[in-house]
Amino acid sequence: MTDRSRVLTLSCPDRPGIVHAVSGALVALDANITDSQQYGNPATGQFFMRVAFEADASDEALRANLQVVARRFDLAWRLVHAERPVRTVVMVSKEGHCLNDLLFRQRSGALPVEVVAVVSNHPDLAPMAEFYGVPFHHVPVVAGDPESKPAAERRLLELVEAEAVELVVLARYMQVLSDALCQSLAGRAINIHHSFLPSFKGARPYHQAHDRGVKLIGATAHYVTADLDEGPIIEQDVERVDHRSTPADLVRLGQDVECRALARAVRWHAEQRVLLDGHRTVVFR
Amino acid sequence: MTDRSRVLTLSCPDRPGIVHAVSGALVALDANITDSQQYGNPATGQFFMRVAFEADASDEALRANLQVVARRFDLAWRLVHAERPVRTVVMVSKEGHCLNDLLFRQRSGALPVEVVAVVSNHPDLAPMAEFYGVPFHHVPVVAGDPESKPAAERRLLELVEAEAVELVVLARYMQVLSDALCQSLAGRAINIHHSFLPSFKGARPYHQAHDRGVKLIGATAHYVTADLDEGPIIEQDVERVDHRSTPADLVRLGQDVECRALARAVRWHAEQRVLLDGHRTVVFR
Amino acid sequence: MTDRSRVLTLSCPDRPGIVHAVSGALVALDANITDSQQYGNPATGQFFMRVAFEADASDEALRANLQVVARRFDLAWRLVHAERPVRTVVMVSKEGHCLNDLLFRQRSGALPVEVVAVVSNHPDLAPMAEFYGVPFHHVPVVAGDPESKPAAERRLLELVEAEAVELVVLARYMQVLSDALCQSLAGRAINIHHSFLPSFKGARPYHQAHDRGVKLIGATAHYVTADLDEGPIIEQDVERVDHRSTPADLVRLGQDVECRALARAVRWHAEQRVLLDGHRTVVFR
Amino acid sequence: MTDRSRVLTLSCPDRPGIVHAVSGALVALDANITDSQQYGNPATGQFFMRVAFEADASDEALRANLQVVARRFDLAWRLVHAERPVRTVVMVSKEGHCLNDLLFRQRSGALPVEVVAVVSNHPDLAPMAEFYGVPFHHVPVVAGDPESKPAAERRLLELVEAEAVELVVLARYMQVLSDALCQSLAGRAINIHHSFLPSFKGARPYHQAHDRGVKLIGATAHYVTADLDEGPIIEQDVERVDHRSTPADLVRLGQDVECRALARAVRWHAEQRVLLDGHRTVVFR
Repeated sequence: MTDRSRVLTLSCPDRPGIVHAVSGALVALDANITDSQQYGNPATGQFFMRVAFEADASDEALRANLQVVARRFDLAWRLVHAERPVRTVVMVSKEGHCLNDLLFRQRSGALPVEVVAVVSNHPDLAPMAEFYGVPFHHVPVVAGDPESKPAAERRLLELVEAEAVELVVLARYMQVLSDALCQSLAGRAINIHHSFLPSFKGARPYHQAHDRGVKLIGATAHYVTADLDEGPIIEQDVERVDHRSTPADLVRLGQDVECRALARAVRWHAEQRVLLDGHRTVVFR
Repeated sequence: MTDRSRVLTLSCPDRPGIVHAVSGALVALDANITDSQQYGNPATGQFFMRVAFEADASDEALRANLQVVARRFDLAWRLVHAERPVRTVVMVSKEGHCLNDLLFRQRSGALPVEVVAVVSNHPDLAPMAEFYGVPFHHVPVVAGDPESKPAAERRLLELVEAEAVELVVLARYMQVLSDALCQSLAGRAINIHHSFLPSFKGARPYHQAHDRGVKLIGATAHYVTADLDEGPIIEQDVERVDHRSTPADLVRLGQDVECRALARAVRWHAEQRVLLDGHRTVVFR
Repeated sequence: MTDRSRVLTLSCPDRPGIVHAVSGALVALDANITDSQQYGNPATGQFFMRVAFEADASDEALRANLQVVARRFDLAWRLVHAERPVRTVVMVSKEGHCLNDLLFRQRSGALPVEVVAVVSNHPDLAPMAEFYGVPFHHVPVVAGDPESKPAAERRLLELVEAEAVELVVLARYMQVLSDALCQSLAGRAINIHHSFLPSFKGARPYHQAHDRGVKLIGATAHYVTADLDEGPIIEQDVERVDHRSTPADLVRLGQDVECRALARAVRWHAEQRVLLDGHRTVVFR
Repeated sequence: MTDRSRVLTLSCPDRPGIVHAVSGALVALDANITDSQQYGNPATGQFFMRVAFEADASDEALRANLQVVARRFDLAWRLVHAERPVRTVVMVSKEGHCLNDLLFRQRSGALPVEVVAVVSNHPDLAPMAEFYGVPFHHVPVVAGDPESKPAAERRLLELVEAEAVELVVLARYMQVLSDALCQSLAGRAINIHHSFLPSFKGARPYHQAHDRGVKLIGATAHYVTADLDEGPIIEQDVERVDHRSTPADLVRLGQDVECRALARAVRWHAEQRVLLDGHRTVVFR
């Protein structure tokens, strides 16, 4: 990929001619489409498309051409440079498996994000952030101090603004976000829930899973919404367990699944592969 | 396996000496243990064991020896001939994928059961049973006739008694069993539920799954209890789906998962590998 | 899907404008593209595309429009009605698991093929074909009679021609096809090999796998070529085994994997999702 | 687990009475068996057993009792304290994904090993070892200097001896070990091979896999033997790929599979769950 590589994503009411019009707007500027996927939701009549292309044309020229199509077909659309890493904040508490996984992947070039900060309500993972050269912000949320949580959320939003953050990843951050913050971050905050949703919502899902005697445990990466554990699902994965697995075993095995599901969700989001379709997601893998 | 092959299963309160006592009772009759697995539930202090062995000794001699151990350690135990197929009734409605799968596996020797009858509230699958040489009983349950369901259940129980049936498999039988029937068949009736329990209990689980936008669908084989969809889970499996999968696709993909999970659960049950541990199962795979 | 549904597949040297030209040829006839996928092989510069669309226009009109694009971009292309089942012959020997699986799926509407004949070098599976209402041809290949194999292959080719067969599925047919027959059926014959190719080519792969002590066994569905076990791979799947698994267990577990991999390959082929890219395949799932 | 927890592993020619004799030797010292698994290889007549138990008795007393059984049944046996982490050296070259995975798991308590040193023919991963507080030894192997390799191997063996190392993990160490070193480390060196063996032996397996067009890639953790890529397999895992996956994608996806397979193999080895059975392994999971 070079600076010529762009990704266009769009959605609109489905009707004939969209693909032709979009490809026409690109061809007119000598763009070469390298990948293209589309999906029409038959239940809602909504159309979704992701087009990767290479072009020497300027962003301005491309936007001008696409704007014409956008007006004609009522597009919601987004055009980004494919090679630009997505500016990301990772939020954690005490468990570091997901943070370690994300930072290692970023460093090895397997994840097109730039983690600009790690934010935590505990100081434990500061050394890990430091090892990977990422600023660490300890933003405590104190159980007995009702002011501490709003303050922490304000601090996060300031950081998001100051650093032009595009994605917030809750990598086992053990605080429930306020409705207002969820709304502010709608569509750009991903959480990893340690169960195969909608099973075992709420607290201590591995203990619930153990008690129910399930034979597979799972993890779910989803967009954050005000409706806890109900956000649009991006990715899920599972791991086999058996009667001998203790709750502690489920926690350990579950951590692997959490890492896998979250890393895929972050990568797909950063590659502009995930589009929102109501309370569901379209994932152009 | 020959007629010399037996399987002993047992459970009792855990304490030192059980394995030694059980193996001693067998060794005293020149039995050779070919496989042995055990499990102690640390939360309840209950001990579970499955021992496969070969012996020329008679059942009576073996039982007499084991009875001594059973009294000493307060065993709940069961001794069966390993090679004897388990006498089984399969209950179906209109969908034949699980029935076809079970009957084909039985015929090809991959499932140690003998299906002595297929029972259905619809006549549709009679030809399939006939093809496999299994008697088919059409036992209607009529929506408008409240007497038809108790009558159907009586007929099933008569069949279970007359044919010395050891296992009843609900292979997508779309009627809810009465509490009384569930109790009569406790520990010897297996149902396949077309969702990854505890997600999507109740009706039309694939439509629920589609609406929630999950990325994996599943199926759950469990023992039947009066508490619907809450019985002890024997096996679960999943299959990947995506945003393009319609509810009809989920149904089709789900049928494969249902076949797999149910066939494994039936095989493990028939091989005496499944022991009940409260509302959970111990599966000695 | 209605009779208006078509699928267009094509490949050509990659260059800008293909998507726009193809969509233009369709839009000009008021076609609505319902699904579209494309792939450019960076190593060879070859471009592949599958377009599903709905149109009232006649085949002739569509073909005329597409022919113009085909000449301009040097397309190899194919246009079919999406809802028309693919005329298929299934070849078997004695083992019926794949045949049973394919015929059951066809009957239940899960596989868009019409099995017009079952051909076998043994009579064993005639009753199964009969149960599903499919003509069965017993075409013996006799070890001691060198004439029997060419005769059998001639008979198959006559059947392929007489019945306008589009797809030949080798569903555990245990005879090696001649080079000439492989060439005649190039791109329209699918074999299921009972190993995870390229591991364990040749005979008795499960015994080879057992001897090597692998922890996963697999199956491979591939197009038939003169180069045995080297044809382009369409689909592979695996199943976990362990040290206790005997070769007989591997055979039994492997049959499930064979069914799964073959059914997917046949469905994808029948839905025009598989394109040949040299000795590899492009699968637009 | 407490210091009372032990694991006994043994193998011997199969004959009646082994389980009874072993359990008797333990019961006589008031040991409580908490887990026990066994396996008899029907092809070779060899018997394998793993017994986990708790006992207040001293090692000397336990060994004395077991020695009697060992003589009678010709046991090869091993008795270890279950809670003692296995002293381990990890060898790497430039790629750090497996090292990072192993060190993170060790620190979080998910892997019962103590990594006493990281040895590498390159300096690149020194900071990672340092972050985890593990001594790093840079032991170059210079292409043009035939003396450097024997010197490096001597240095490793000295380290193994000086540090009482029980396990050497080749976590993507890109040098072939000499036959003599393989022999010295027989049964206590685990390698991760980046293919689904026996497919794609030798160099650049992901490029081989890409060229062959496989639909699943894999990784294999195995004991090191002088016969390269032919050592007894401990664990294998796979990941789905498709036609769009470039060799670079295969490398990236493969790294995840390598981490998973290697971590499981190391854990099972460290928990005394892996026994050698000729060129195969028995894994008591």
